[in-house]
Amino acid sequence: MTITITAFDRSPDGGKGLARDTRVRWALEEAGLPYEIRLLSFQAMKEPAHLRLHPFGQIPTYEEGDLALFETGAIIFHIAEHHTGLLPSEANARARAITWMFAALNTVEPVILELATVRLLERDKPWSAERMPLVQERVRDRLHQLSNYLGDAEWLDGAFSAADLVMVSVLLRLRPSGMLDTFPSLAAYVARGEARPAYPRAFAAQWAVNAPKPD
Amino acid sequence: MTITITAFDRSPDGGKGLARDTRVRWALEEAGLPYEIRLLSFQAMKEPAHLRLHPFGQIPTYEEGDLALFETGAIIFHIAEHHTGLLPSEANARARAITWMFAALNTVEPVILELATVRLLERDKPWSAERMPLVQERVRDRLHQLSNYLGDAEWLDGAFSAADLVMVSVLLRLRPSGMLDTFPSLAAYVARGEARPAYPRAFAAQWAVNAPKPD
Repeated sequence: MTITITAFDRSPDGGKGLARDTRVRWALEEAGLPYEIRLLSFQAMKEPAHLRLHPFGQIPTYEEGDLALFETGAIIFHIAEHHTGLLPSEANARARAITWMFAALNTVEPVILELATVRLLERDKPWSAERMPLVQERVRDRLHQLSNYLGDAEWLDGAFSAADLVMVSVLLRLRPSGMLDTFPSLAAYVARGEARPAYPRAFAAQWAVNAPKPD
Repeated sequence: MTITITAFDRSPDGGKGLARDTRVRWALEEAGLPYEIRLLSFQAMKEPAHLRLHPFGQIPTYEEGDLALFETGAIIFHIAEHHTGLLPSEANARARAITWMFAALNTVEPVILELATVRLLERDKPWSAERMPLVQERVRDRLHQLSNYLGDAEWLDGAFSAADLVMVSVLLRLRPSGMLDTFPSLAAYVARGEARPAYPRAFAAQWAVNAPKPD
């Protein structure tokens, strides 16, 4: 059955690979699954046809036969559950990998996204400059804990899994800030993720859509 | 095998049931599983013994034989996967329920938690009063989308599932703000969740720990 995902017709990051379709592309590449892409404008994302697929009007969505999913974590979990290579088969290791998927999305990503709130949504507010160090400190606290946990391990828990795919994708959001470089073990962890053969294929696929073009 | 979860020895909410152990207690009650509780002080949560169970130094954790998990969403998913009543058995409905679990935790909860950032973490900052309406507006946007999706349905997707358990728990955080009351269908949805027999058992169990006592 054909898999179709949605993505921005023009990502707000200009092709840095930080839009969430890149994570799903990466998971599909890891699993060796072909897919089709349907590009959406910001306007189309808020229209009823898309809201029926994604009640919060975002990308990506995932369609496969009569199954329609949204929410990146759930899409990646679905792919991981139905194909080999993204989740361990031993029951306890599998449960721990799922734990780290939720941790990446619910414990690590929210503090990182607040950097974008300061930089973009509240850029012109009078408190923006003074508030930024507080938000950065919350990110550093989390990175410190994650770095302590990871130590010099290659991946979060044994072999590479969907948990690493999601965590590396979340941490990649920090690259523009330079904050990752102050945690060498995390920077090396992210680099290992990017060095997997599937990642550059996913990145190139989104770059083909988002690379700056003359207007 | 005995299930042991951790919780605050004194919840910062004073027993309102908003600490995350209540969600796990609720899931265990829905599944009809007995459990033991290990209470932790704030200090103990940051010590090595607990950090080995929860790298981010939070509660709850979940131990069952040689399995140790953290992260509420993952714990609830684990319970739902191994016991009946919290996830549909039909494959597509199951995938959609998992989608809504991730959506509650990654798309709805982060904007709601920002209310607490303003109210607690940044209470004394000069921008706090001016910033609050912006944060509230982001919450209202999400509630509006969720309310549009839910319409007059009883639960998010067919029968009650772990997705509703998580979403109701996330929305309960809004009760002190009064924001829920401006979305009657969501207020009714939350009330339906609280009216399930398992919820008051979970609430009472945390209340037994957290009810205000003379010092």
